[in-house]
Amino acid sequence: MTQAVNLISALAGVVGTTNIITNDDEMLPFLVDWRGRYRGRAQIVIRPRTTEEVAAVVRLCAERRVPIVPQGGNTGMCGGATPDDSGYAVVVNLGRMNRIRGLDLDTNAITVDAGCVLADVQRAASEADRLFPMGLGSEGTCQIGGNISTNSGGTAVLRYGNMRELVLGLEAVLPDGRIWDGLRALRKDNTGYDLKQLFIGAEGTLGLVTGAVLKLFPKPTAMATALVAVHSVEGALRLLSALRGTCGERISAFEIMSDSEMEIVLRQIPGTIKPIDATAPFYVFLDLADSAGDLDLAGTLERALANALDGGLISDAVIASSSSQAAAIWRLRHSVSEANKKEGVSVSHDTSVPISRIPEFVRRVSSEMASQYPNARRIFVGHIGDGNIHFVALFPKSLADDLDTFEKAALSINRLVHDITASLDGSISAEHGIGQSNRKLLARYTDPLELKMMAAIKRLFDPLNIMNPGKVMPDVLDGEISLET
Amino acid sequence: MTQAVNLISALAGVVGTTNIITNDDEMLPFLVDWRGRYRGRAQIVIRPRTTEEVAAVVRLCAERRVPIVPQGGNTGMCGGATPDDSGYAVVVNLGRMNRIRGLDLDTNAITVDAGCVLADVQRAASEADRLFPMGLGSEGTCQIGGNISTNSGGTAVLRYGNMRELVLGLEAVLPDGRIWDGLRALRKDNTGYDLKQLFIGAEGTLGLVTGAVLKLFPKPTAMATALVAVHSVEGALRLLSALRGTCGERISAFEIMSDSEMEIVLRQIPGTIKPIDATAPFYVFLDLADSAGDLDLAGTLERALANALDGGLISDAVIASSSSQAAAIWRLRHSVSEANKKEGVSVSHDTSVPISRIPEFVRRVSSEMASQYPNARRIFVGHIGDGNIHFVALFPKSLADDLDTFEKAALSINRLVHDITASLDGSISAEHGIGQSNRKLLARYTDPLELKMMAAIKRLFDPLNIMNPGKVMPDVLDGEISLET
Repeated sequence: MTQAVNLISALAGVVGTTNIITNDDEMLPFLVDWRGRYRGRAQIVIRPRTTEEVAAVVRLCAERRVPIVPQGGNTGMCGGATPDDSGYAVVVNLGRMNRIRGLDLDTNAITVDAGCVLADVQRAASEADRLFPMGLGSEGTCQIGGNISTNSGGTAVLRYGNMRELVLGLEAVLPDGRIWDGLRALRKDNTGYDLKQLFIGAEGTLGLVTGAVLKLFPKPTAMATALVAVHSVEGALRLLSALRGTCGERISAFEIMSDSEMEIVLRQIPGTIKPIDATAPFYVFLDLADSAGDLDLAGTLERALANALDGGLISDAVIASSSSQAAAIWRLRHSVSEANKKEGVSVSHDTSVPISRIPEFVRRVSSEMASQYPNARRIFVGHIGDGNIHFVALFPKSLADDLDTFEKAALSINRLVHDITASLDGSISAEHGIGQSNRKLLARYTDPLELKMMAAIKRLFDPLNIMNPGKVMPDVLDGEISLET
Repeated sequence: MTQAVNLISALAGVVGTTNIITNDDEMLPFLVDWRGRYRGRAQIVIRPRTTEEVAAVVRLCAERRVPIVPQGGNTGMCGGATPDDSGYAVVVNLGRMNRIRGLDLDTNAITVDAGCVLADVQRAASEADRLFPMGLGSEGTCQIGGNISTNSGGTAVLRYGNMRELVLGLEAVLPDGRIWDGLRALRKDNTGYDLKQLFIGAEGTLGLVTGAVLKLFPKPTAMATALVAVHSVEGALRLLSALRGTCGERISAFEIMSDSEMEIVLRQIPGTIKPIDATAPFYVFLDLADSAGDLDLAGTLERALANALDGGLISDAVIASSSSQAAAIWRLRHSVSEANKKEGVSVSHDTSVPISRIPEFVRRVSSEMASQYPNARRIFVGHIGDGNIHFVALFPKSLADDLDTFEKAALSINRLVHDITASLDGSISAEHGIGQSNRKLLARYTDPLELKMMAAIKRLFDPLNIMNPGKVMPDVLDGEISLET
């Protein structure tokens, strides 16, 4: 107890008492993930405002072997920012560290605190007539440090890459409290190992990201949006291939949704309408964008889709004739989580496979699910242009009344989907990360040598195992110290 | 001696005697870098053909603590593939490991052996109606494994990124001979730390890259090339900014050359002509490319350059009216090294700075050089769109007659340029890497904490220090074992 009091007073000396939360009720929002799937405890939630404060906090914790849980907007999908239930952890919430440090137009780069909300960074870029392309459902809440630590994805990956590709430089506090200043704004730099890559996607287990230099892009000046009905997943891929030939690099989003999902969205979300008559097994949502002058992209898209219709690639299509029509189309896509939550209980997955193997993935999952779980609705939705498909098995809400049975079914469906994913050389976590949720899966589906390398790197950077312990690394690796056999 | 004989016969058992070179004369081409600046010795040069053979070779060497020097096309700029002069090393040349393992059109990916020559990979992509965009002067000789290990750059970085951005998956043999199979063809994968990033740009010091999955792109169908005369470096940057507004993502190359270099190329390279009359302090070489149908990019470029001329941004410009004219323009740019070698002796640099600081870099280097070395011609040439400028101080050949004096001058010029680079938050090795040449510079210009992290990673992966020892890591770090202070 004395030790705890000592730590708290030492931490208060760093950030001031007003930026420390010790009261259980006030801590609560920081101890539960946004979906309410994980709930932990902590001795304290602390809200530093500068890199130096973060460093001092980490140093004080490290001296006492107190575990640190870095936290951004707390919008993660895998419980990566929620402490365990020991009550011993210090949650370091970066929400107050939200300064745009600078924007350099010629360099096309913006330097930000890790606690900046993604939408604020998008806005700062836009006000400077630039684009920061990362876009997520949670963009009004999630923070850049979390985007970096989870290597976030979203709908713009097809054109601009994952968060990893958008980071030029990084600043991080190491698990012993030392500050690494890697805030470079360089497009090319081959001076030794590229250390920032280690912290990107590490979910705060190797250090605490405090700042970043991010790439900016020309702002699109022309846009076109379409909703397209296709006969099959193969048809969607053929459409993508055809569009690459006629619309080239302008393809900015290419998402797919099965009719099973479309039906649920239309029923559950008030005010949504499907702007085409045809019913088809799958729908494609697509955007073209160009930053050069005022090209007629709607015209380009119309010709391309007319050709696709003539060639039998698609069965129907509509092109938005205004930005509000475009928004209405995209609203269908963005309402998926909300609609499914209203409709039933779901078992969902975050699969990626090589793009050419998507049809086989969909076929095999559909067929296995139809025979093993005929009462589940089979939903496919996601970023088909990146090979990232979310399969959702949707059950009536009543099924969750018997939680044990439901959880057993969920585990067995997970196994079925992940085994198919693995057999297709895919990933069981394309964009959501590992956090707490997927640690066992990581152990199961990852090459043991690769796990050893990861564990050895974790040990090297965090020998006390205080930086977000219990996240990413599977428990089975706790004994691994070196890379040796 | 017995040990050496034992090793050689064991290695012969792996690859066959015909794929082992022990004779000094026959080894010579593998022991000297292409520019003849480094010459080493080896007990043997071995040419394995498969990943399993490489693994067996590495295992045999590791058991005997024999240093391994991985070697691709031997076209590096910093001696990274040349052994030291102890005569103890085994050079593992990957030239025979040159199979295209597969090409997947829908996934837009090609899987290759590390020993594939870059031009062969470009050709395989092109035959499948795709583009592999990495392009270098040495593309007819350099190998993919070397491109990956040095994170190569070139003229297409502006649009497609460095080699790091082009790698989807990797296969490497670790320093103890274990094979890591990270040959994934996924656009999104967040299952733990992204280990491939460690091997990319590590110059073979953490493991030996044996294969890779590379990204492919739509092949450009429309192209336009121009040579533009500009008043200043600032003018070139303003032109780039203006073109981004009118030509957007179509800008595929944007290179700069000072008039001092243009003059030398025209004098030294037979058959070259400058296709514009104006003399200007700097010239910009630029390409537009688009993969969508048959756009009139020359028309777009003409309008953009006419506007730039009217606005006083540029003083003259010519647009190539045929592919042979485009080739003639680019020949000027690609003849730089050859022309300078004929003209005199040079002290050259591989600097990158944030793009907005290029004018200051050029101004400060010019002014310091003019006052300290008035007899040097000052040449600036490079990838201005990436912030990567090569400054070359060119002296009359006679100056190298007194080698001691010349080398002293070279060191002092290096110091001058690198100090200015560092003060502008730049990199002293933008695209060439560290190898043997830049180890001392790395120690001088890198944050000590960053050096510690690099050394600790090196120790973790290669505790025996047998994988390309004496490269990248500065000698001063030889004692570093852990990250601890």
